[in-house]
Amino acid sequence: MSDVSVHLGPNKYGKAENRLVRITRDGDRHEIEDLNVTSQLRGEAFAGSFFTGDNSRIIATDTQKNTVFAFAKKHGVGSPERFLSLLAEHFTTEFDWVEGGLWQAEQYAWERIVAGGAEHDHSFVRKGQGTRLATVQVVDGDTHVTGGVKDLVVLKSTGSEFWGYPKTEYTTLPETTDRIMATSVTARWRYLPEAVAEGVDYDAVYEEVTAVLLEQFAVVHSLALQQTLFEMGKAAITARPELAEVRFAMPNKHHFVYDIARFGLENDNEVFIADDRPYGLIEGTVVRDGAADAPAAWMDVPGFI
Amino acid sequence: MSDVSVHLGPNKYGKAENRLVRITRDGDRHEIEDLNVTSQLRGEAFAGSFFTGDNSRIIATDTQKNTVFAFAKKHGVGSPERFLSLLAEHFTTEFDWVEGGLWQAEQYAWERIVAGGAEHDHSFVRKGQGTRLATVQVVDGDTHVTGGVKDLVVLKSTGSEFWGYPKTEYTTLPETTDRIMATSVTARWRYLPEAVAEGVDYDAVYEEVTAVLLEQFAVVHSLALQQTLFEMGKAAITARPELAEVRFAMPNKHHFVYDIARFGLENDNEVFIADDRPYGLIEGTVVRDGAADAPAAWMDVPGFI
Amino acid sequence: MSDVSVHLGPNKYGKAENRLVRITRDGDRHEIEDLNVTSQLRGEAFAGSFFTGDNSRIIATDTQKNTVFAFAKKHGVGSPERFLSLLAEHFTTEFDWVEGGLWQAEQYAWERIVAGGAEHDHSFVRKGQGTRLATVQVVDGDTHVTGGVKDLVVLKSTGSEFWGYPKTEYTTLPETTDRIMATSVTARWRYLPEAVAEGVDYDAVYEEVTAVLLEQFAVVHSLALQQTLFEMGKAAITARPELAEVRFAMPNKHHFVYDIARFGLENDNEVFIADDRPYGLIEGTVVRDGAADAPAAWMDVPGFI
Amino acid sequence: MSDVSVHLGPNKYGKAENRLVRITRDGDRHEIEDLNVTSQLRGEAFAGSFFTGDNSRIIATDTQKNTVFAFAKKHGVGSPERFLSLLAEHFTTEFDWVEGGLWQAEQYAWERIVAGGAEHDHSFVRKGQGTRLATVQVVDGDTHVTGGVKDLVVLKSTGSEFWGYPKTEYTTLPETTDRIMATSVTARWRYLPEAVAEGVDYDAVYEEVTAVLLEQFAVVHSLALQQTLFEMGKAAITARPELAEVRFAMPNKHHFVYDIARFGLENDNEVFIADDRPYGLIEGTVVRDGAADAPAAWMDVPGFI
Repeated sequence: MSDVSVHLGPNKYGKAENRLVRITRDGDRHEIEDLNVTSQLRGEAFAGSFFTGDNSRIIATDTQKNTVFAFAKKHGVGSPERFLSLLAEHFTTEFDWVEGGLWQAEQYAWERIVAGGAEHDHSFVRKGQGTRLATVQVVDGDTHVTGGVKDLVVLKSTGSEFWGYPKTEYTTLPETTDRIMATSVTARWRYLPEAVAEGVDYDAVYEEVTAVLLEQFAVVHSLALQQTLFEMGKAAITARPELAEVRFAMPNKHHFVYDIARFGLENDNEVFIADDRPYGLIEGTVVRDGAADAPAAWMDVPGFI
Repeated sequence: MSDVSVHLGPNKYGKAENRLVRITRDGDRHEIEDLNVTSQLRGEAFAGSFFTGDNSRIIATDTQKNTVFAFAKKHGVGSPERFLSLLAEHFTTEFDWVEGGLWQAEQYAWERIVAGGAEHDHSFVRKGQGTRLATVQVVDGDTHVTGGVKDLVVLKSTGSEFWGYPKTEYTTLPETTDRIMATSVTARWRYLPEAVAEGVDYDAVYEEVTAVLLEQFAVVHSLALQQTLFEMGKAAITARPELAEVRFAMPNKHHFVYDIARFGLENDNEVFIADDRPYGLIEGTVVRDGAADAPAAWMDVPGFI
Repeated sequence: MSDVSVHLGPNKYGKAENRLVRITRDGDRHEIEDLNVTSQLRGEAFAGSFFTGDNSRIIATDTQKNTVFAFAKKHGVGSPERFLSLLAEHFTTEFDWVEGGLWQAEQYAWERIVAGGAEHDHSFVRKGQGTRLATVQVVDGDTHVTGGVKDLVVLKSTGSEFWGYPKTEYTTLPETTDRIMATSVTARWRYLPEAVAEGVDYDAVYEEVTAVLLEQFAVVHSLALQQTLFEMGKAAITARPELAEVRFAMPNKHHFVYDIARFGLENDNEVFIADDRPYGLIEGTVVRDGAADAPAAWMDVPGFI
Repeated sequence: MSDVSVHLGPNKYGKAENRLVRITRDGDRHEIEDLNVTSQLRGEAFAGSFFTGDNSRIIATDTQKNTVFAFAKKHGVGSPERFLSLLAEHFTTEFDWVEGGLWQAEQYAWERIVAGGAEHDHSFVRKGQGTRLATVQVVDGDTHVTGGVKDLVVLKSTGSEFWGYPKTEYTTLPETTDRIMATSVTARWRYLPEAVAEGVDYDAVYEEVTAVLLEQFAVVHSLALQQTLFEMGKAAITARPELAEVRFAMPNKHHFVYDIARFGLENDNEVFIADDRPYGLIEGTVVRDGAADAPAAWMDVPGFI
């Protein structure tokens, strides 16, 4: 069979999951920043590598890795959004054939260990609760920045209902006015370009948005996980004028009332079995009215899973 | 602070990871199909659930789950692409407010256990090599179908070079004309709409494409993982006229020559340490010339990771 | 070939990973207990099941599961050690042919979400930091109880040295007087039988021991991870008279100083790359002088990994 | 509070999960061996490291790692059992204060890629089915060797019953004479010391034992997973005179008949939902009559989980 004609479609390449730990030790009291950084580049000039193995324009993934660690020393981290922005600017300005790319980070939070009643200077315990997310995307000369959080596992033991849905041929679920609602929140918020330009305090936004998301999860009396999602996004956008939109992936982690009536025991929503699979999966976006859409910001970003 | 005005952006919902095992037992010789099925719906009518918890149009995720298992009996599985197509058609025709959705499956292969020198009728061992992928997406009245494979781990112990890349400020990687190249292939191929309409033999395509991908990985003398990727995609499209494009995510799983010269031992590419992170990550698309683009087919599909 | 003669050696069976969530809702302020419970039984009477499939003495694993959930209602959880003790007593007294067994639990901690400046009554966020462990083992009529913790990830950015080790043919590691030391602590402490008999406050011990372990990790100026381990165990035993011994598995999670001198940058222990594998693995036991040994307590317990 | 008196109990240390890939390239046709090797040492002399951070007897874990890779060149791998034996002998003879230790390996199987109808010389695809296990343990001057396999996932779609168990207060499970039985086999077999001394063909044993285990799983009409386990072990010991005993951990991976009668559909063991947790966990040992017990062989070996 003779070869058919083909061409190269969307592509990018780089180094994934650079596990960077940055210690700031200006004095006795150290600071720690702990990230997982991915750098990937896009550009027409990379096509030669695909077609003939011509690497004359390939910024080696090993070079991208070295750059991540060198920049951690030269410029510090500061926040994942800032750090990725520095990388994005470097690669797209230093090499004129790099047209854009996607830079991603996870950041793990640490707390100081308490020793002798005081926070220790240089000993830390990993917080565990939630993982911070960030992306910087450069497409067609525009730079898009998102922040986010994942693995924020929440549960409310009442204040959640689910009823009023269509009863179809395959519907067997009983309606309920009181159930456990539990999810592991993944949220990514896109910053308005003008906020990025003016210099946003990414850390402050992260702190406030995660607090607001948690609070809304708690206070919304929920008729559907969708409703909770929407109120969470709305509250985040209300709280921070820097945000254009918030995207969520929220699995409905089912907790089933265990049938102990068979043993003569009442179960007034007290004893549950947590199930792994299948799970509901609710994904949605809340957008500020008037904010310009930016689909390019989300290209290849694992926001909806 | 008064609420700001917001609206609902992209969203979908459903039941994820329904672990379906279908046994066909028409006689003594059983057949097994083992899948992980995700069903998610999209439509304007679902907005009420987000805004006010109005579930009057919500096909409960539990109902979607029941449908998956009921359909496995009523219609059989056949192939993941066929099975997802049946689900897609059902949800978008049975409920006029369901505008579209995304249906995804993984399928796990099993082999018959050999007993007494013959393949056993009803005892199986999981194959382990590669996981089959499929998606069916309905957007704006169009149905898009993809097949795929993931976790196909391959390695070649020679026949791979990497040199000729720019030496920049942060480049330290030595050039090589002989290295291990290893990756875990994730590939998804989109079927031409006309092939879907005419009835494609999805199983035959899966078998042939995975064989072709493996073969190309083996025979291409590689100057870059990108080059190998492109040749793999080109060969798949050449082999099967039903394919419009193939998308790849191929991590470069680094194997470093272990420095044993320090112990007076020569290491002529014989002893390697396999590293977990970071890894190169090469993603690319090979497209048949003349095939119409279909970005909607890839919406929310985890093809590029 | 004729069959050889064989007999049955050590065995046990049961139901693993029962994901129990227990809500206490005596008033508006709910409490949550979230556990992963495994129950396994031992006894000569179970041999028939192995030999001929005679299940007349097999307490079905499904029955064990039901018992876990029924007991959560009848008796509450209280602490994982207490809950497992109730299960152990039940199975070994209710069925005279059950000679013993091993009951294990993980417990996940939740914090109340803060809403409107106050802790919410029924909304929780998973803490993430550390997972509580417990086992109850009944062997030869004796009951052994352990508590523990795992996934307690700690790091100190200075105050750790490693030098003075033999320089052998295969030694290349440079000595250091200043390195990052990081580990994920798994610790299990065995309670003195008399403490169990008198009624120990398991929750109080857990809180104090985990705090002491963290504090010692912080304050010990470490010449070896072994030294830190020993001081941690010693401090725990010193703090709580109920403890007979503490067993640790502490991987040395390597953080390598990234070589940026190649780029003209100084790296005074500021920029590290965290490596996944291989890792050092230090395991040790600290025992109270005079405490009777109890190897049976540790039978099949995944304490040393 | 003054310190209490404590002493050091069981301990060991070393380097875990050295990911060794060994290519043999004597000609055009390469061979690949792919292992995950853990080396840990025991001895009284290591106590100083725990007590005072005196490392004068500590063979650094980094040195152990270097030794693994150097030995892969000097001696080749051959089989995991052989390779671990070489390491064990080296550490316990080269350093007179090393009293013993535990060496463990996993080995991953690769198949040659078929290209142009023939097996390729230097391109491989990972097999995926089952992971080979091995341990060598030196305790009190005795060397114990085990082989094994894990992640061997098997299922039979009929030929499995479960009934005749006691109906207790908490029993709700219906009896069945036809169910799916599925498990992921972990098996470890201990070699007779005399077989080790005489030189056993470890690879041949591995191939035959895994085949026999699969075959027995298939052919035994099962009244209990315990019965299947016992027959599997008996057949392995019957097949290979080198084996003293076989230990199994076999989770009962539940597949529940999905209730589609609610939709007017019959389900004659055709449609199942595979559940993740909880799962039955059956663990047992089959021992050759007359073989001497060797509990030391199993010290710290994760055989029973």
